[in-house]
Amino acid sequence: MSPSPFHGLSAFPPTPADPHGRIDTEGLGRLLERLCESAVASIGLLGSTGIYAYLTREERLRAVKAAVECVNGRVPLVVGAGALRTDHALDLARDAEAAGADALLLAPVSYTPLTQEEAYQHFLAVAKATRLPLCIYNNPGTTHFTFSRELLQRLSDIETIKAVKMPLPVDGDLRGELALLRERTDLAIGYSGDWGAAEALLAGADAWYSVIGGLLPRTALALTKAAMAGNDGEARRLDDLLQPLWEVFKAYGSIRVVYMMAEHLLDIRAELPRPLLRLGPADRERVLDIVRPLIELEHQSLL
Amino acid sequence: MSPSPFHGLSAFPPTPADPHGRIDTEGLGRLLERLCESAVASIGLLGSTGIYAYLTREERLRAVKAAVECVNGRVPLVVGAGALRTDHALDLARDAEAAGADALLLAPVSYTPLTQEEAYQHFLAVAKATRLPLCIYNNPGTTHFTFSRELLQRLSDIETIKAVKMPLPVDGDLRGELALLRERTDLAIGYSGDWGAAEALLAGADAWYSVIGGLLPRTALALTKAAMAGNDGEARRLDDLLQPLWEVFKAYGSIRVVYMMAEHLLDIRAELPRPLLRLGPADRERVLDIVRPLIELEHQSLL
Repeated sequence: MSPSPFHGLSAFPPTPADPHGRIDTEGLGRLLERLCESAVASIGLLGSTGIYAYLTREERLRAVKAAVECVNGRVPLVVGAGALRTDHALDLARDAEAAGADALLLAPVSYTPLTQEEAYQHFLAVAKATRLPLCIYNNPGTTHFTFSRELLQRLSDIETIKAVKMPLPVDGDLRGELALLRERTDLAIGYSGDWGAAEALLAGADAWYSVIGGLLPRTALALTKAAMAGNDGEARRLDDLLQPLWEVFKAYGSIRVVYMMAEHLLDIRAELPRPLLRLGPADRERVLDIVRPLIELEHQSLL
Repeated sequence: MSPSPFHGLSAFPPTPADPHGRIDTEGLGRLLERLCESAVASIGLLGSTGIYAYLTREERLRAVKAAVECVNGRVPLVVGAGALRTDHALDLARDAEAAGADALLLAPVSYTPLTQEEAYQHFLAVAKATRLPLCIYNNPGTTHFTFSRELLQRLSDIETIKAVKMPLPVDGDLRGELALLRERTDLAIGYSGDWGAAEALLAGADAWYSVIGGLLPRTALALTKAAMAGNDGEARRLDDLLQPLWEVFKAYGSIRVVYMMAEHLLDIRAELPRPLLRLGPADRERVLDIVRPLIELEHQSLL
């Protein structure tokens, strides 16, 4: 196990829930058990894939309590505390700390577009509300907020802000971005966007914030370790095996794919919150054809 | 007063609230009284400027009840029912109907980006939940959802969906867009984006969904009437007078400007929900210099 929740593979499981947003803590426990057994570097509970944005404060607290009990210190738990209102984010951060979370993940969720200063004050308020280390959740695809480099620099000066989860750079220049961020901040720098993870880690990123790591942790961990050891060939071989999955992640949105995978894999009920819809029968068949051999590899530990 | 809530000036007031999102119903009543006295075509309660996205179901219901009591049938009340979850939007729509709202405004609020089909099913579910006429709230600047023309066409086939509130077209071609939408749908077509309202109405739009109409209804109504009567000269003269205000709307976001205007104008407490911040002292001074003469014009009915 890595000594930091922000170095190595951070696995983001789906959160199984019913159509009313009531969490199935038993099903969640089974998902988390797989991650603990695989010894991922950290678990990203209630990330975007974990539908945090759609759950009430009460349900999010139930999820954290159930996760702390199940994980029982084996793997650091990073808990999403994002909310549209600053006061709600403070409540969620304090709830997570009180329930035993090890770290926080905070996205600048927005409706009215935020200024850089508004995002700064939001992060500052949450950072001050607990003693937990905090990872900046930079995900413009869902939050529609773009961090300036100056803002990341200011945030990295806040003592408990320790890491950033970056989206893949639009221009593809991972090495350039990493060099710039390392020059300006002392944050641990990780990436999300599973299809770019191998390249990001080979370019020197500290972490992979991984959707597929939440369901196929052994495969994701093998890729992470190969890439972080500079083993290009092995990292790219595994990435190639996963390529068909990346294609359906991009085509349908990874969240829609992993919720059906979770049901298939663990026989649990994992409903997407409407308005999000399940994939239709033809799309499901296409996804199942792709994931069946990947699940087999994962289970047989053939990697 | 126009016979339809979706034709003419629809005025969107701010919702005065404390830092915890508790609504000041007395202050709200004073804002609404001004709109009723000016006989706007409709009141857009709990729109984006009315911070609906940041308020709880309970507070939103309190706002609707207070508004129905104050307005007392003098002006149709269009109530925002947007929510991230479909089940929550259904609850809000039913609450609004039960409390006496005349129509609904529904935005496809998103976190995970929605597909066209997901948005369709979301609107269909809400439309079926009440008998109220419904206006599609097309506002990609906050919802980050883009309606295809096909989707607008499908939605217009749902019996109670009667109108759409459009953003200003990126290419500026209002006449072309209006012609296309009228060919494909039977929706009443209105625009938001106050700085483009004069041109939209002169191009034949049915309604102006107006932020400044919520605070300076007489001025906004004079502009609306002139433009809808095809009086280019008068509409453009009023639009020119408002130009400095449009500049600060664009510079700071109209919501940040109108909350300080509401405090200045009516001596009420109208806090933006954090993370949104008040304008700083220099910016406030700039805005006040611009709005003082506009408030005077409004009060003296010199228009």
